[in-house]
Amino acid sequence: MQMSNAGLQDRDTEIVAVVGAGAWGTALARMLAMSGTPTTLVTHTEAQATALNTLRENQRYLPGFRLPETLDISHEIEQSVPSATVIFIVVPSTNMRSVSGSLQSHLRKDAIVVSCAKGFENISLMRMTEVVADAALVPTDRLCALSGPNLAREIAADLPASTVVASQSSEAAMRVQRALSSSSFRVYSSLDVIGVEYGGALKNVVALGAGAVDGMGGGQNAKAALMTRGLAEMIRLGVAAGAHPMTFGGLSGLGDLIATCESPLSRNRTFGERLGRGIVVKDAAGDSPHVVEGIAATRAAVELANRFDVEMPIARAIYDVLEGTSDVRDAVIRLMARETRAETDMDVSD
Amino acid sequence: MQMSNAGLQDRDTEIVAVVGAGAWGTALARMLAMSGTPTTLVTHTEAQATALNTLRENQRYLPGFRLPETLDISHEIEQSVPSATVIFIVVPSTNMRSVSGSLQSHLRKDAIVVSCAKGFENISLMRMTEVVADAALVPTDRLCALSGPNLAREIAADLPASTVVASQSSEAAMRVQRALSSSSFRVYSSLDVIGVEYGGALKNVVALGAGAVDGMGGGQNAKAALMTRGLAEMIRLGVAAGAHPMTFGGLSGLGDLIATCESPLSRNRTFGERLGRGIVVKDAAGDSPHVVEGIAATRAAVELANRFDVEMPIARAIYDVLEGTSDVRDAVIRLMARETRAETDMDVSD
Repeated sequence: MQMSNAGLQDRDTEIVAVVGAGAWGTALARMLAMSGTPTTLVTHTEAQATALNTLRENQRYLPGFRLPETLDISHEIEQSVPSATVIFIVVPSTNMRSVSGSLQSHLRKDAIVVSCAKGFENISLMRMTEVVADAALVPTDRLCALSGPNLAREIAADLPASTVVASQSSEAAMRVQRALSSSSFRVYSSLDVIGVEYGGALKNVVALGAGAVDGMGGGQNAKAALMTRGLAEMIRLGVAAGAHPMTFGGLSGLGDLIATCESPLSRNRTFGERLGRGIVVKDAAGDSPHVVEGIAATRAAVELANRFDVEMPIARAIYDVLEGTSDVRDAVIRLMARETRAETDMDVSD
Repeated sequence: MQMSNAGLQDRDTEIVAVVGAGAWGTALARMLAMSGTPTTLVTHTEAQATALNTLRENQRYLPGFRLPETLDISHEIEQSVPSATVIFIVVPSTNMRSVSGSLQSHLRKDAIVVSCAKGFENISLMRMTEVVADAALVPTDRLCALSGPNLAREIAADLPASTVVASQSSEAAMRVQRALSSSSFRVYSSLDVIGVEYGGALKNVVALGAGAVDGMGGGQNAKAALMTRGLAEMIRLGVAAGAHPMTFGGLSGLGDLIATCESPLSRNRTFGERLGRGIVVKDAAGDSPHVVEGIAATRAAVELANRFDVEMPIARAIYDVLEGTSDVRDAVIRLMARETRAETDMDVSD
């Protein structure tokens, strides 16, 4: 049933393109198609489109979940994107600029573009929606960031989950909220785009550290302490960049941090766990097809900490391990030894 | 080596009594004795003292960890408490008043008393240090609360951990900090006694809910969302009671919440998990000898929410399950359905 509300489009009227067929892109597109929204999953290569179309399953990134017949699969941007009213870009952060650039000339004038990437651009240290704005020429009132505790395999299994869509435009956020919401997927909205994007990117840094504690057999006490101090670092950096501190206590900060640090499914936590077990950095990714966003995010976090003059001892310790200038065990021990300050600025000594 | 600092006692000069030989009391006393502090572990019964003295192990509550010969074990308060400069009371919250009352006439005038209990007193809804002050007649400048992510078995295994000692007196907090600190146990201090005590008590409420999600196979996305919204409830209630919101983002709030909700060792999480698997409340404790503090804490949280007029939908949902007025699955579904508000007060709709 179509509503005649001028400002808002009913979810039935949205036509969606999900660009990027990794685990999360596939799960998102599948969920949208199953809820009745006309959806195209746009793959990177023709071979991938053919494989998904033939098998009706993404065996590489989301094995075990059948893709509904109603989900269109194509690698041709020029065919799927021009009709889309909402485009989700679900690619690794390193590919965001090139993918956004390739979309630019095909976007409808009124299309909403949603970044689902969690990271910063290398060197420029731009947030993902900043990269989209720059490369796809999308104005901020049609830009959104989607972030939250959303392990793709759980979403595909229809387990309950929640997420946050952030935009400077409440109308844009509400349209994405309507398109995605279901009885098992709760979508919250936020105006704090910086906070939501910083939370999603920086939690992967802490997840590397939490994984390392797991790999060393450090226990839940130590891991909980690291996550707690890690969240404090995330808040310090985010606030310096213009985010609202409360955002980090929400789903896109704390919620995603917990899900990522605790799930055996998380590629970032798993990479950290392998480091903690003594596996060297170049081998720690193993043969996983997934991108470990936390590696680039750690480098970005340290550079942003320098730019904003913010203390981030945990990010720096992980950086040293990734750069090979510190042994993972030494790094954790130094972190424990360093952390002798009062817990908050209200506190006593020492 | 004794320091001549007038205001501070060196840790070598402290004489410690740990009252209560459950898992945490035993682990604390063992850690103190092993670090060279003269320590007596005070048991509830003579039979328990005899068993611990004979076996040099607490087989019931902390099996597998040898008690050092330097640890004195006694059930006689009148022999161990009068010489103690620091007394840790490590008993279930329901026993705090009676135990504090029994100590009252035996305490040194300058002794520091540290509550290690996490809960509220039934009916009065008093915090544990308030109960100690009332029943043991200890002034607030010699009262402390100890709380943090401190799973006893991990501490006994000498895995790294951290904790918070809170007191209105910075001198008292620092003496406890010195007595407990070691290379593997970091002790932070705080002046926010209310925040530290509310955090420690209320995290057990959320842990029941997180355990229930585990038991239902609800996944990490849902569990992370519940913990995130649960922490928000803890902050709302704590702030209404006079706590500082930042305290809940620290070790005694978030840190303890994470460790409790994620550890298979937590009795509160495990109790919730059994509820989630469909086991009825009266059977969910199983044959565990440990007290499930979260049950009484849930009742207290709901009563405090009424008193302070604070919204606590998660605590109320858990309360309904514990009271038998709601099925655990219905409660979680209602919680998901209810949570349709904006994420923070900055947010858009709906």
